[in-house]
Amino acid sequence: MIRLSTTEPGFAQAFRELVDARREADADVARDVRTIVASVRDEGDAALHAFTRKFDRHDLNETGWRIEKADCAAAFDALEPKLRDALQLAADRITAYHEKQKPADSDTTDAAGVRTGARWQAVEAAGVYVPGGRAAYPSSVLMNAIPAKVAGVDRLVMVTPTPDGEVNPLVLAAAHIAGVDEIWRVGGAQAIAALAYGTGRIAAVDVITGPGNAWVAEAKRQLYGVVGIDMVAGPSEIVVIADGKNDPEWIAADLLSQSEHDPTSQSILLTDDAIFAGKVAEAVDLQIGTLSTKGVARQSWDANGAIILTGSLDEAIPLVNKLAPEHLELACDDPDALFARVRHAGSVFLGRMTPEAIGDYVAGPNHVLPTGRRARFASGLSVLDFMKRTSFLALDAAGLAAIGPAAVALAEAEGLPAHARSVSLRLP
Amino acid sequence: MIRLSTTEPGFAQAFRELVDARREADADVARDVRTIVASVRDEGDAALHAFTRKFDRHDLNETGWRIEKADCAAAFDALEPKLRDALQLAADRITAYHEKQKPADSDTTDAAGVRTGARWQAVEAAGVYVPGGRAAYPSSVLMNAIPAKVAGVDRLVMVTPTPDGEVNPLVLAAAHIAGVDEIWRVGGAQAIAALAYGTGRIAAVDVITGPGNAWVAEAKRQLYGVVGIDMVAGPSEIVVIADGKNDPEWIAADLLSQSEHDPTSQSILLTDDAIFAGKVAEAVDLQIGTLSTKGVARQSWDANGAIILTGSLDEAIPLVNKLAPEHLELACDDPDALFARVRHAGSVFLGRMTPEAIGDYVAGPNHVLPTGRRARFASGLSVLDFMKRTSFLALDAAGLAAIGPAAVALAEAEGLPAHARSVSLRLP
Repeated sequence: MIRLSTTEPGFAQAFRELVDARREADADVARDVRTIVASVRDEGDAALHAFTRKFDRHDLNETGWRIEKADCAAAFDALEPKLRDALQLAADRITAYHEKQKPADSDTTDAAGVRTGARWQAVEAAGVYVPGGRAAYPSSVLMNAIPAKVAGVDRLVMVTPTPDGEVNPLVLAAAHIAGVDEIWRVGGAQAIAALAYGTGRIAAVDVITGPGNAWVAEAKRQLYGVVGIDMVAGPSEIVVIADGKNDPEWIAADLLSQSEHDPTSQSILLTDDAIFAGKVAEAVDLQIGTLSTKGVARQSWDANGAIILTGSLDEAIPLVNKLAPEHLELACDDPDALFARVRHAGSVFLGRMTPEAIGDYVAGPNHVLPTGRRARFASGLSVLDFMKRTSFLALDAAGLAAIGPAAVALAEAEGLPAHARSVSLRLP
Repeated sequence: MIRLSTTEPGFAQAFRELVDARREADADVARDVRTIVASVRDEGDAALHAFTRKFDRHDLNETGWRIEKADCAAAFDALEPKLRDALQLAADRITAYHEKQKPADSDTTDAAGVRTGARWQAVEAAGVYVPGGRAAYPSSVLMNAIPAKVAGVDRLVMVTPTPDGEVNPLVLAAAHIAGVDEIWRVGGAQAIAALAYGTGRIAAVDVITGPGNAWVAEAKRQLYGVVGIDMVAGPSEIVVIADGKNDPEWIAADLLSQSEHDPTSQSILLTDDAIFAGKVAEAVDLQIGTLSTKGVARQSWDANGAIILTGSLDEAIPLVNKLAPEHLELACDDPDALFARVRHAGSVFLGRMTPEAIGDYVAGPNHVLPTGRRARFASGLSVLDFMKRTSFLALDAAGLAAIGPAAVALAEAEGLPAHARSVSLRLP
């Protein structure tokens, strides 16, 4: 964990290093992924079988390639009621939030008699990646699958690695609630390649979303264009702006809720109160020891954590806009006033009673958010990621007479005579 | 040009080959682009200078790195009035269409007392690529720059190669109308890398859009994630569905308006009338000879053109949905009835009086559209490409009491104790 203060000499340089610090895939990952993707494209199921045996240590022909819907229903039924209700509440709230994202079509005719519009439709097939092992989260299943369902995709496919053949019943239960149509026991870059190109067993999809490790993220990046993807995802991040009136224990827990995700996660506190900053640092150290995730949390906090002392909370906002964090908590008296000045953040949590983790599970907005400063240009996952827009245009003779000559003039100026002729032939 | 008929044996196979035919960048391009991108990232302006000397055959230190706004204003003033008016009409109509795309923010509080919402904001800086040479189109400047301006970006940068140092006054005039803030005389993959990483002279942008050759398209694909991009663009395409009541000359001109773009462009006619099909083929051959673009148009039509005879126009629709074309003309009596069944197309042109070229210039909808079957998952360029959405969330004690316990249950089930604690500490 580093401590910085805006008043110390060298702050600008130290802050720039924090902003520019890369915590993502390197060239080796890109090379490995190119090899895996090419194998799956050329050899299909045989490559999936071999990579799964190598990386996940089981034989798909024995464990089975698919997980059946009946298995998902059974996993759901077997949940303890409290957990089942929690998953259902989450699903209902996520559905309600995303229903409001559905875009409206347009169809208007202007004064020149030119009809223009746009029509939104769902993609036919979407694939959702769900990590295995440490990061096998049912909440991720809901956050990725529900927007696709709300968008109206015809076929919703899930791929998930099952290391040593072990399935995660919580993930299956979430797939049941979310209405996933197909589940394949494959993971890694090979699963992304299978969804993008299709194999003998797995039909190709149009869009792939969902979190994964560096290989998965790089495979999505490489296959962008063959399919649509949600975004290039990196390690999770939180920035907390907190004044001295907060309970240091609460803020410490909020910081650790990111640190415990992965050793590459990042948690940053910005505060105007030096004594409070010290108390939070102490509370973090004490709390880490009590966590079952202490190993990861300790690594992440030591390597990537930061506490930055600012002259005022207002002074923290330009720093936040440079960091463009995935998650931003505003734990202060008038969070809306600060929020009004935030330009770049994936999701913002307003006020002392809104810990980021509530948004990870049950609040409704999507928890799949841009990382690694990509909130400068990217948005969280939404229904729009599973839809596309077709624009349209209709002219009659009068409309063409009104605007056609300008098109002819421009086409001729651009040296495109067939463009010009296709319009001029229709003019009176 | 190939001729197919849905009734002939082997049609399914021949059509599949047409759908799968790749007309895009190969592995060599990808390798070259990786080298160029790495040079610009590591050496900045020195690399730009060297690549420009090599590919565009001029010395930036002599010709000048930038084109000044005054030069753009002068180019606009020097246009002949008819062309100036045509550009202005185009700009006005494109602006009006894109204004309607601006997304609405949301901010609601539900029955549980949980406030959720989303706020859209423009990216800070956008870069527009404008090709030099054959494809230096002022219409492209308008189509890329105006949505960025409507979105509200602070800084709009244009990059364009000036082969042998020659600038295109039409492109400069369009940049003037569109309100471009900076223009740099660099092109190719090196210009995309400069915009993505920034160099000593050129500050990095957040989003890069605009058409280009295979190297430009591949550079955008490789740098996606470092910056946002509009899409992976390939050669232009048109599919025309036309009945026998059309004038074959009109339809031939429409087909040629794509063929004349580039040897890799593709034009496909689907018709239910064999005699009409023959007349169109004849008209295409006759018209090609009269075009100043005949060399390109001939190559494209011979290599990639197709006429497909279908049993009915209805039968053409499933074929169109497989092709997922960039442009689709419906030249028939009731185009809306066919359009209702179109699932995948970038932009649709309804009726006999709506040639595709009218949409290239002055109608209003964007002419930057998904190619290479990407209309399955991608949309044309819009204001949304220059904006991003920040979701937000605010709970009070009552709201947290209502949904917090479910979050705690899910966090515990996922093995994330700090997540659970950040919520449970705040519960009564």
